[in-house]
Amino acid sequence: MNKRMQDFQSTNLPKFEKKIAEFLNNLSAETTLKDAMAYSVEIGGKRIRPLMIMAICSFYNRSIDDDVLAVAGSLEFLHTYSLIHDDLPEMDNDDLRRGKATNHKVFGQAEAVLAGDGLLTLAFDWVARTGLDSKSKVDLIAALAKAAGPEGMVSGQIADIEGEHKTLNLEQLKKVHERKTGALLRYACQAGGILCKTEKEELELLVNFGASFGLAFQIYDDILDVVSTTKEMGKAVHKDKGENKNTYPVILGLDGAYQRLEQAIEEAEGALVKLNASDCVLADFLEYFKRKES
Amino acid sequence: MNKRMQDFQSTNLPKFEKKIAEFLNNLSAETTLKDAMAYSVEIGGKRIRPLMIMAICSFYNRSIDDDVLAVAGSLEFLHTYSLIHDDLPEMDNDDLRRGKATNHKVFGQAEAVLAGDGLLTLAFDWVARTGLDSKSKVDLIAALAKAAGPEGMVSGQIADIEGEHKTLNLEQLKKVHERKTGALLRYACQAGGILCKTEKEELELLVNFGASFGLAFQIYDDILDVVSTTKEMGKAVHKDKGENKNTYPVILGLDGAYQRLEQAIEEAEGALVKLNASDCVLADFLEYFKRKES
Repeated sequence: MNKRMQDFQSTNLPKFEKKIAEFLNNLSAETTLKDAMAYSVEIGGKRIRPLMIMAICSFYNRSIDDDVLAVAGSLEFLHTYSLIHDDLPEMDNDDLRRGKATNHKVFGQAEAVLAGDGLLTLAFDWVARTGLDSKSKVDLIAALAKAAGPEGMVSGQIADIEGEHKTLNLEQLKKVHERKTGALLRYACQAGGILCKTEKEELELLVNFGASFGLAFQIYDDILDVVSTTKEMGKAVHKDKGENKNTYPVILGLDGAYQRLEQAIEEAEGALVKLNASDCVLADFLEYFKRKES
Repeated sequence: MNKRMQDFQSTNLPKFEKKIAEFLNNLSAETTLKDAMAYSVEIGGKRIRPLMIMAICSFYNRSIDDDVLAVAGSLEFLHTYSLIHDDLPEMDNDDLRRGKATNHKVFGQAEAVLAGDGLLTLAFDWVARTGLDSKSKVDLIAALAKAAGPEGMVSGQIADIEGEHKTLNLEQLKKVHERKTGALLRYACQAGGILCKTEKEELELLVNFGASFGLAFQIYDDILDVVSTTKEMGKAVHKDKGENKNTYPVILGLDGAYQRLEQAIEEAEGALVKLNASDCVLADFLEYFKRKES
């Protein structure tokens, strides 16, 4: 991580973490439910999606105020719900997430379903409760629902499950991931644009950046599953191959996957050039991907 | 059902059913997911919540247009999601709902989780997509999220699960049901009021009516579980006693439960009197409860 990204995170992440903890803590809800939701939200992770919203606000000189933190937090809630449900025994059946026991392992399966349901609902709740103007709230809620719902992430999830029983080609795999992983990353950029009230053309470029970043993110995740150890990843690895999952390395080979990763990164860089954003913290997100030395 | 309610339903239910089927059908989503969502939405049920929204619009002479149907439909989606997740093996583990196999029995457990997630997300999506003004959309979304989320229904669900392992007193049982069943019925009345742009005092009376109706609804459901057969109910009965569930008849005895039902109905009637709504289709909802002859 370069110095600029480091500074950006040390300025903004603590107030973000404080905000989401406060929001959950102030809820008038059953203790078990609050504990289960907070457990998965506070395990952490890289906070890429909220950081991306904040980075766009920073690029447009919009103050990272309570409203921005709320929109960023609501996206993290939504992302966390998807992980909790994804880890369930009937879904991916994972015991480990970010190096810790998954939600249902700690709280029980019914509780994990409800913690996910709760966080999904809170994502919309929190946006609706901000001090933003009504038009912006509706734009954000509509975009979030579209990204997360049956035309986005939820279809990606079911396509992923169904894909396990058949061999997908590259186009089909891309379509699964555009929805399963890409949709929320695209939304992060869209939300940043809505919060900064950018022009339509700029919003489109931001969304393009998010889409390319999302694709790179998924390819890189597939690559990591092949080349990493469980200790490095904090979750089970080499699972994809064992489960005959459709991944970029499986379809394209490891070198082919690295090539496709490089291409996605270049597309993201292209969008940043058009936005005159090549030299800001937004560009530093691309350092997340360790490129293969040629 | 009296003639007025019969006429009201035959005028409005067909266009409601058409609307929700169309909305689902037009989604650009994976076929399995669409099928699973449509299956549970289209099994039917009494459509009490959407009918209540429409009845309030009718009382205030607001046309039951596409926007009203969308808000009513979104509530039915949300209610349906809660049933799908509630029936899951890790929750109530029910095989039968409204006389048909439950969602996970037909589509599989992972698919049922995702169908529920999809419908919950669509509930917010649909309100955001209506032609209503932004302020009304935000008011509806905020109220729906509050009713359905960790401060409402989801806490009710988890309290209900946890209550299975202990004996609740009447106050605790009421608090469970206010959230588990009551919150969405309250919201139905609130949504009707928001759609009709009623004054604050009227909105409060509508919400009071919804709350009392919700309480009566739950007590009556508990009573039916004791006095009915599986054939009449379309789902397993006498389960409550077998599972040592906390119910009104268990805590108050059957006569006591009938008395408490009567009291809740009278509270609902009181709210209608104050609204000058004692002689409209809204009052006919109270006929749903067969009162015990004294």
